[in-house]
Amino acid sequence: MRGVGWLAFVLLIGGVNSLPAQEGGPSVPLARLMPMPAAVKVESGRLGLDKSFRVGIANYRDARLERAIRRMLVRLEAQTGTAFARDYLKDAAQATLVVEVRGAGEAVQSIAEDESYSLKINSRQAVLEANTVVGALRGLETLLQLVESDPDGYYISLADIEDKPRFAWRGLLIDVCRHWEPVEVIKRNLDAMAAVKLNVLHWHLSEDQGFRVESKSFPKLQELGSDGHYYTQEQVREVVAYARDRGIRVVPEFDMPGHATSWMVAYPQYASAPGPYEIIREFGVFPATFDPTREATFKFIDRFIGKMAKLFPDAYWHIGGDEVMGKQWNENPKIQEFKKRRGFKTNEELQAYFNQRLNRILRKHGKKMVGWDEILHPDLPKDVVVQSWRGQESLGKGAKQGYYGILSAGYYLDGMQTSAAMYAVDPLPAGNGLSPEEAARVLGGEICMWGELITPENIDSRLWPRTAAIAERLWSPREVNNVGEMYRRLDATSLFLEQAGAKHIAGPDRMLRQLAETDDIEPLRELLRLVEPLSLGQRQSASRANQLTPLTELADIALPDAPGRHEVMQMVDELLGDAPGNAARAKLETEFRRWRELREQLDAMAKDAPRVRAADAAMVALVDLAAAGDEALAYLARGEKAPKEWLDAKLALVQQAGRPKGLLRLAVVPAMRRLIEAAGEMSRL
Amino acid sequence: MRGVGWLAFVLLIGGVNSLPAQEGGPSVPLARLMPMPAAVKVESGRLGLDKSFRVGIANYRDARLERAIRRMLVRLEAQTGTAFARDYLKDAAQATLVVEVRGAGEAVQSIAEDESYSLKINSRQAVLEANTVVGALRGLETLLQLVESDPDGYYISLADIEDKPRFAWRGLLIDVCRHWEPVEVIKRNLDAMAAVKLNVLHWHLSEDQGFRVESKSFPKLQELGSDGHYYTQEQVREVVAYARDRGIRVVPEFDMPGHATSWMVAYPQYASAPGPYEIIREFGVFPATFDPTREATFKFIDRFIGKMAKLFPDAYWHIGGDEVMGKQWNENPKIQEFKKRRGFKTNEELQAYFNQRLNRILRKHGKKMVGWDEILHPDLPKDVVVQSWRGQESLGKGAKQGYYGILSAGYYLDGMQTSAAMYAVDPLPAGNGLSPEEAARVLGGEICMWGELITPENIDSRLWPRTAAIAERLWSPREVNNVGEMYRRLDATSLFLEQAGAKHIAGPDRMLRQLAETDDIEPLRELLRLVEPLSLGQRQSASRANQLTPLTELADIALPDAPGRHEVMQMVDELLGDAPGNAARAKLETEFRRWRELREQLDAMAKDAPRVRAADAAMVALVDLAAAGDEALAYLARGEKAPKEWLDAKLALVQQAGRPKGLLRLAVVPAMRRLIEAAGEMSRL
Repeated sequence: MRGVGWLAFVLLIGGVNSLPAQEGGPSVPLARLMPMPAAVKVESGRLGLDKSFRVGIANYRDARLERAIRRMLVRLEAQTGTAFARDYLKDAAQATLVVEVRGAGEAVQSIAEDESYSLKINSRQAVLEANTVVGALRGLETLLQLVESDPDGYYISLADIEDKPRFAWRGLLIDVCRHWEPVEVIKRNLDAMAAVKLNVLHWHLSEDQGFRVESKSFPKLQELGSDGHYYTQEQVREVVAYARDRGIRVVPEFDMPGHATSWMVAYPQYASAPGPYEIIREFGVFPATFDPTREATFKFIDRFIGKMAKLFPDAYWHIGGDEVMGKQWNENPKIQEFKKRRGFKTNEELQAYFNQRLNRILRKHGKKMVGWDEILHPDLPKDVVVQSWRGQESLGKGAKQGYYGILSAGYYLDGMQTSAAMYAVDPLPAGNGLSPEEAARVLGGEICMWGELITPENIDSRLWPRTAAIAERLWSPREVNNVGEMYRRLDATSLFLEQAGAKHIAGPDRMLRQLAETDDIEPLRELLRLVEPLSLGQRQSASRANQLTPLTELADIALPDAPGRHEVMQMVDELLGDAPGNAARAKLETEFRRWRELREQLDAMAKDAPRVRAADAAMVALVDLAAAGDEALAYLARGEKAPKEWLDAKLALVQQAGRPKGLLRLAVVPAMRRLIEAAGEMSRL
Repeated sequence: MRGVGWLAFVLLIGGVNSLPAQEGGPSVPLARLMPMPAAVKVESGRLGLDKSFRVGIANYRDARLERAIRRMLVRLEAQTGTAFARDYLKDAAQATLVVEVRGAGEAVQSIAEDESYSLKINSRQAVLEANTVVGALRGLETLLQLVESDPDGYYISLADIEDKPRFAWRGLLIDVCRHWEPVEVIKRNLDAMAAVKLNVLHWHLSEDQGFRVESKSFPKLQELGSDGHYYTQEQVREVVAYARDRGIRVVPEFDMPGHATSWMVAYPQYASAPGPYEIIREFGVFPATFDPTREATFKFIDRFIGKMAKLFPDAYWHIGGDEVMGKQWNENPKIQEFKKRRGFKTNEELQAYFNQRLNRILRKHGKKMVGWDEILHPDLPKDVVVQSWRGQESLGKGAKQGYYGILSAGYYLDGMQTSAAMYAVDPLPAGNGLSPEEAARVLGGEICMWGELITPENIDSRLWPRTAAIAERLWSPREVNNVGEMYRRLDATSLFLEQAGAKHIAGPDRMLRQLAETDDIEPLRELLRLVEPLSLGQRQSASRANQLTPLTELADIALPDAPGRHEVMQMVDELLGDAPGNAARAKLETEFRRWRELREQLDAMAKDAPRVRAADAAMVALVDLAAAGDEALAYLARGEKAPKEWLDAKLALVQQAGRPKGLLRLAVVPAMRRLIEAAGEMSRL
């Protein structure tokens, strides 16, 4: 913030919330920015991008920085179709892009890493300044997001950006246990994470359903607990290095004492009941729990962590600690005796004891503890980080007690919520009642990609682009919160994420072709505009899937937050808005007609491809909604208030339409409810 | 062939050439078979595929066979959406699929490996019999190709298949030097190769533009010669094992004495001129050549091969040997002196000397030599295999002289020829004039995917589905040669290849989105129906690309053998065929109208995405062709012969339209020529 010049920026940041998107001018250069920088000032004029584009490194340089610049150049070349010089201009001041970094930053990136940067673009050059290489990485992504084109070619609008993250911990949990995700899936999603400035990969590596890392000391862990699907230590090192290159920390999670069946397949002696154990195929909470009463258990864990600690250089180590079932503890007389001897009245106290022992082991090996809500206990030291799946209240409680916390409640991607819903979840909402000191303990948040229903084929479309909206929540100022603007930028970001490597657009197309056994999948693409997958809970109630269920059905392909949800709502808004009009009405009529046609097309497709039938229930409901929609339009056009019986009947229909249809749900229900309710009110047309 | 029962099959194989595709009956079960088996008999009835599907292994089993069955099961599950039991039925006779293999086959797969199998499907079970695991692998792919579906679900028609390859060497060369292709690209294309029963990966690993394998003895080779893009030895072992699992041999090529610049960057002392050398960025033939007159050269090569030989277990080792420029030899007085001393009159003789020395080194390390045409020389032993890029004549000449040969002329994918054109190229065409003994020396063929204009993004769409047509040429009986049937099966095979892992459909879509910076790429998809990339030669004449050129333009995305080529030809055929009709005429009129609309849509797109302009010249020509087409239709409709001046003008237009349009060409030119010529003849309507 430097006086008058920045007024424009202040207006503009306001403008993100209020400027009409189509008005052009300053909004265009920002159209692809996500997360929105802390401060942006746009000026008229442009820096052209042509063959003469050269990079200069003005100050500190190292291999990580040079690799990052190289990657940026390759993407810029792909985007512009122009080959640029690969070497750096000796006289940096003459370069088109000057990268001026003060130093390497931390040897092992921590929550204290300086990620700030500034990016100043004038008509002669762009100057990217940062204190650390990680700051420069962030700025390079912003630079790529600023590239625009018009008939004259590619360019960057003149701009002045000062940027730094709101939260230090901006993570993504990927569960590779319930379903396996090979290294290439992790890598391409690290690229996508970097594109939206996320900085922690929380790698969920052990579960009832699988143990996913090679242990040299205890090879039976992966030999018996993984179905052959695990990362070699070499691969782990590769992923950690790949992440570091992108300014991303890797925090491993080895869940204990519960969620531990896969350990017990190989080492039943450390469980609280004798076994034998098998890898669990179902999903849920299972009995296998470490025995916290035996010294052998801690010796085993100590040796395990001692070796693994070197593989994961991050200061933090996630112990899980969630959902301890208690069954094995309750049924084991020795454990009951132990509790009595120690004066533990509850299993929570026993778990707290386990965690303290665990914490001592972690400290010995130079690690700080992260765990889920359940670990919160007064006996734990204050440098522990609590990850809250229970909610902001739990998070605030921890912060008041002096614990660091990160929010995950509200960021569960398997809830299949809209980007808007998750975007609205703020780890530190206005009026949170925390003192500045307490608030500072809320380090940020983590998006959770649990593995029950994901495969290498569909994980990208579950992650992206929704995760980008949360990434903005965790990076950008709290005031950047206009949902309409977010969606407009999210569309552009979706392509930016694809450029970075994510397969969220190509993946569903491929799955549709395989499902329908044809290259002509246009009707199914249209279907995916209108239906969504059920939440994990709904889906499992409707039809229980386990680890062996093929995840290749429409329900596995359908897109959370389907585009039709917003598109149809927008049409209804337009119809009911200030500018009344036949145009809006005609759009909706066309839309409803398409739903009827689509049903016929899908019926025809199902003759050769029986699995298209999975859309039947949704299509029946959709065609019913179309009929109700046409009637509502007629009432509105006549300026006639629909009779109460009609309204009641149609609202019942809408309610019915909102329920699961097979393993799908209709995305257009809220829009249709709004339209039908409008017909039941005084007509506005 | 076993008497009367097989008559049906004999008819049917004839039927592949003559049965109308839409007649149903026996043609449906064959619709996805590629390559067509040597003998197929189809009967009425079906074997249902449902939850009860179980596999039994009746005889020999090993880990390779079990992995292959597991992969087949995973694909079958994905295709049918049904989870099958993962274990094998103890009583194999009760299983739905009985796999009965006599033995492992060769420890290192050779050209003598038995790849035959039989697959008998009755209404109770499918029985796959093979002498070797490789034979079983082939049969498992056939089994997957037989899966059909209708409203009742998934099934396999009853059939009796006896199959074995026509040629023992069915290879694909992938050049990873001119452009780098990471391991995952190689792996997914090995999967696709296995899907169409190819059995040799010819891995082109050294070139002027890059040295791509880690050498432990001479690490400077990869350190200085690869830009950091090389396979570690661990990765090579991984790829070789992956290939073996799929019944594919891996033959490495280290090209020498020419095409050797990348070696000389690190080791100029073995070149025929002093250097220094740099990695070559341009494409072509370059001077750097090993010095065949120095013993140090052979000592170096001996040490290099001695170490590498273990990494590549295959009996064969490709020495390249092509396109020795001669410049360095001619300009080096010592080499001239050496030639004189030895009585070599030509550089060919000097190269033959080099090759003999090389052959001795190879033999010492247990390898047999493969090389390009140029190595053919009477002094070489008869177990050498000559790979012919010059043509069948050269191949035949070698066979007559007693050399083994494989054909590559006609199978160069960068020629951007149609599948039909390459399908017509037979290594042993009828009337080849070879004795049975000589013919037996023609081992097969190799498709060549040279690397000048390919990247990990577009290699799949350059390879597939065209390579599948050549795979059929190399596997199936010579008589399987009906082009129309081939194309119909190729469409289904394209999806089968995608199921196996190829990215030839998803890749171009992604590239189009990135080029146009929008998710709405329908107009560009339509464009790709009508235009094709230029051949390598044409493209390089039009605009020279080198290793650093970004390959993200329309020319890099466009599909060889674009679908419109056949579709429009089919419309014209229909119009001019026996059944005259307004329907055919209306189809063509619609088609021409779409070309005009498309031009407008692309113009609009180009406003935001300047690189869409690359289609301009093609679209201008296309719209001109549309106008000529409309006129031709009018003449034909009136039953009037078009005047000669008109015909001459339009044929000139067609000729002009056949020339490169920027870096593209129009796929519909042959169809339009046919239409216009018809209007100039006596009308048939």
